[in-house]
Amino acid sequence: MTKPWQQRAEAKRCAIIESIPQKWRLLVDSIPTADEQPDITGPYLHQFLEQREIEITECDATVIIQKTTSGEWSAVEVTEAFCHRAALAHQYLNCLHEFFPEAALEDANRLDAHFKVHQKPTGPLHGLPISLKDQFNIKNTSTTMGYISHIDQPPTTESELVLLLRSLGAVLYCKTSVPTGLMSGETANNIIGYTWNPRNRHLSSGGSSGGEGALLALKGSPLGFGTDIGGSIRVPAAFNGIYGLRTSVGRIPYEGAENSMDGQNTVPSVVGPMAGSVGAVRLAMKSVLGMEPWVYDPGSLPIPWRGEVEERIKGLLCGEAKGKMAFGMFEDDGIMKPHPPILRAVRLVREVLVTLGHEVIDWKPPSHAEGCSLVYDAYTLDAGHDINTQLAASGETPVPQLAWILNLPSKTPKNASEIFALNVSKRRWQKVYMDYWNSTASRTTTGRPVDALICPTTIMAAALPGKHVHPGSTTFVNMLDYSTVTLPVTHVDESVDGVEAEGYDVRDYEGAPVGLQLIGRQYEEEKILVLAEYISAALRGEDANSGHW
Amino acid sequence: MTKPWQQRAEAKRCAIIESIPQKWRLLVDSIPTADEQPDITGPYLHQFLEQREIEITECDATVIIQKTTSGEWSAVEVTEAFCHRAALAHQYLNCLHEFFPEAALEDANRLDAHFKVHQKPTGPLHGLPISLKDQFNIKNTSTTMGYISHIDQPPTTESELVLLLRSLGAVLYCKTSVPTGLMSGETANNIIGYTWNPRNRHLSSGGSSGGEGALLALKGSPLGFGTDIGGSIRVPAAFNGIYGLRTSVGRIPYEGAENSMDGQNTVPSVVGPMAGSVGAVRLAMKSVLGMEPWVYDPGSLPIPWRGEVEERIKGLLCGEAKGKMAFGMFEDDGIMKPHPPILRAVRLVREVLVTLGHEVIDWKPPSHAEGCSLVYDAYTLDAGHDINTQLAASGETPVPQLAWILNLPSKTPKNASEIFALNVSKRRWQKVYMDYWNSTASRTTTGRPVDALICPTTIMAAALPGKHVHPGSTTFVNMLDYSTVTLPVTHVDESVDGVEAEGYDVRDYEGAPVGLQLIGRQYEEEKILVLAEYISAALRGEDANSGHW
Repeated sequence: MTKPWQQRAEAKRCAIIESIPQKWRLLVDSIPTADEQPDITGPYLHQFLEQREIEITECDATVIIQKTTSGEWSAVEVTEAFCHRAALAHQYLNCLHEFFPEAALEDANRLDAHFKVHQKPTGPLHGLPISLKDQFNIKNTSTTMGYISHIDQPPTTESELVLLLRSLGAVLYCKTSVPTGLMSGETANNIIGYTWNPRNRHLSSGGSSGGEGALLALKGSPLGFGTDIGGSIRVPAAFNGIYGLRTSVGRIPYEGAENSMDGQNTVPSVVGPMAGSVGAVRLAMKSVLGMEPWVYDPGSLPIPWRGEVEERIKGLLCGEAKGKMAFGMFEDDGIMKPHPPILRAVRLVREVLVTLGHEVIDWKPPSHAEGCSLVYDAYTLDAGHDINTQLAASGETPVPQLAWILNLPSKTPKNASEIFALNVSKRRWQKVYMDYWNSTASRTTTGRPVDALICPTTIMAAALPGKHVHPGSTTFVNMLDYSTVTLPVTHVDESVDGVEAEGYDVRDYEGAPVGLQLIGRQYEEEKILVLAEYISAALRGEDANSGHW
Repeated sequence: MTKPWQQRAEAKRCAIIESIPQKWRLLVDSIPTADEQPDITGPYLHQFLEQREIEITECDATVIIQKTTSGEWSAVEVTEAFCHRAALAHQYLNCLHEFFPEAALEDANRLDAHFKVHQKPTGPLHGLPISLKDQFNIKNTSTTMGYISHIDQPPTTESELVLLLRSLGAVLYCKTSVPTGLMSGETANNIIGYTWNPRNRHLSSGGSSGGEGALLALKGSPLGFGTDIGGSIRVPAAFNGIYGLRTSVGRIPYEGAENSMDGQNTVPSVVGPMAGSVGAVRLAMKSVLGMEPWVYDPGSLPIPWRGEVEERIKGLLCGEAKGKMAFGMFEDDGIMKPHPPILRAVRLVREVLVTLGHEVIDWKPPSHAEGCSLVYDAYTLDAGHDINTQLAASGETPVPQLAWILNLPSKTPKNASEIFALNVSKRRWQKVYMDYWNSTASRTTTGRPVDALICPTTIMAAALPGKHVHPGSTTFVNMLDYSTVTLPVTHVDESVDGVEAEGYDVRDYEGAPVGLQLIGRQYEEEKILVLAEYISAALRGEDANSGHW
């Protein structure tokens, strides 16, 4: 007889905690409340770590691989440090669905042994711990996607991305939390509960790659992979103050990963890296594409990482023939007005770009309301049938974040003719938007259409539970399949953001990061990462035009 | 009051004939029957042409542009020669839906005037006439796709491919015939009737790009574009003895073209060039991709023409480090046995490759029956709703070639959940096939998986009307999205093919060309064209390994 879903959830919740070695476990009573300790980043967390662990986990992925591929650091010590920090992160934030430090350390040992014998690394990511959203299949773990019914169903094969990462020398050690069924901008499910924001534990870590966002921001991982069908990489990146790259369809392999509403091809989900630096995100892209994933994944495109594009953009920004670039920018998509900290962030970036000598033009695109309406139609094509089926399999009570898809006015799935029509409408909207983008050539002094677009990721900094609204801020990008990176810009600051605005109280968002979207056209990942790095350098007060960033 | 469909068809049929200048019209009674004159290619057709017209129209597209871009030939004389030849082709074969020599000559005049002033061509295709399948929107013409209901509905904008070709300096002068609704391997509709094969006018020119196939084989066009959702480029290429390239999805722009069941994204249709030589096909690819179509078409991928791939393959074949290549090959897909001339063609190519020092291994892939069943499910997702609607709009009696989709056992379109499941099944089949392809590395002596796959295009040479069977020979490629070129190999020859076989009588196929599929992986257009050129040179008896082809 199957146990009640509450017991299965409880058992899984306990199993996650039990996977944490005793030496890293905290007494439940020792964990302060969010009121007592809202921000657990930096010094607060460091109290639980050895100096060496801090040294390792505070490093960027690009620095870590320098040490691990040169033999300066062992894979084991790096893995152990991140496992420890991830264990702490989970106990404070509920950000893991699977944790397997023993298997990870076994892998790390094998890597170290290889290095010892051959005096060279196994691959470009030798010894780098990587976290993965709970959609990727890893041996001896379940892929629940937040569903009780998927507990204890280990996969027969690993996802292609997992296999590629292993070939690159990476060490896998955890899978991160997601909202039930993936279709929410907050991470909540009946297994781990709610995934909190490490900067302010009253706030959401975003979703659906919310476990990644929280873990990465707390430096319990140097590099992770999420997925994005409507903002699921970009929202948690923004909420947690990290970088998240929504790649264009087919750039990074999805093959062999689980999905919600799998086979919905109108607005496909994509995989992308998330990390604390642009360098780490680029490392992920270059490493994975260097493996030619299109040989193993029918959905991956043979577009290698194009260093020449990076060189060209960097040359334009900082080279001898240094030239102006032009950016489109909007504060407000005409649907919902962002909160004051978000508006401040947009204006800040505008000012930075203008000061650096670039051009910023106002973006007055085709109706975002239309794009958002179409994307909503795509998400609801099956009238919630798949999610309902997965929930019904265990009988679990859905989390409130699923209400929007469980309480649709119609329970009838769309038919083929309706889906064809939606696909045509999507293509038309894409074309109109593309024509608009091309038309900006007549408004820039560069003579080119704008090089990128900058706008809010969400209308609010990290949301209060149940208060995340207007996914349209990110979903319009999924309709367009534009390559987009969220970059951290600022934090909510009562002294400047304490203005009055509808539905907004600055005290709710204390310390919350604000990240904006930097949007390129389709398959312009190389370009937008260079631009993100440049803007980030300027935001840090460095001389970005020097090219030393 | 709307006229009966028969009258509308008759009026359109007459309008096509009337678009032929009087000087090029033939008396209907002067046209011999197919029995009297089955083959109208070469010397037969030349009797109607001036020597200069023959000189021009017998040239390959690559030669023509040498002459037109250097000013040796005028755009007007080239355009006029092809218009004349196309007019003859239509009167014998029924291969045109639109013919507009006047507009073409106006364009050609403009090109000549430009050349006179600037002493340089307007673009790489300056003055090259190009024919297009009747799916592309061209100003002042209708795009009927064979439907009576679409007659006299000129488009408001031109297709992106049309705009790109005009920018390249090409001259558009006709649109070629298709079966009603595009979903047939024979070209028949109520407007032009049946499009015949120029090599043997008892036989089909194939479909759905059947007008292109017939026109190109008769050299009424030096280069054309068709589309392929299940063999619609490859089948007419095989039936007419020309080259046809089925590109992978997103390589050549589809934006702004009409389609049947538009928005069916499970197995998408693709655009590809068709021509009498590999050189012309390559010219089309290079020229279109040189225009960066991804800037204008959201469905086009930013994969430029990769000359370095061509160099690498050519180097492997003929360079100093000349190496063996490995080919997969099958005669029979396990579903239906090809006729004797097709089997002979496969064996001929096998022999040629082995003689040239290459390796040929038997191809025993995952079930083609499964792939073909899935592709059939994709074509019938809307249960024929779109085609029925377009037919009903005029009340026309459908041609028999549509029976398969009009008489489906179920008239209920599939719903979203069923479509999602089909998309997942497709992806799984693609992956299993990909794994099989990769697995051949263990069977070749090159240590690589096979470089390409060679197999029949159809189980028969050009079909007798109503007798085209087993589209699965080509549809499995659409499931896989493999880049595939049909290359002409031989002709039916009673002296060697006069063997007994089920449902086969060699006398039915007298003179019919036999073309095989040369199949690469996704987005390997560059590679398969080099291989096609190499094999073609060998088939012509040239020293292919010399690299001079």
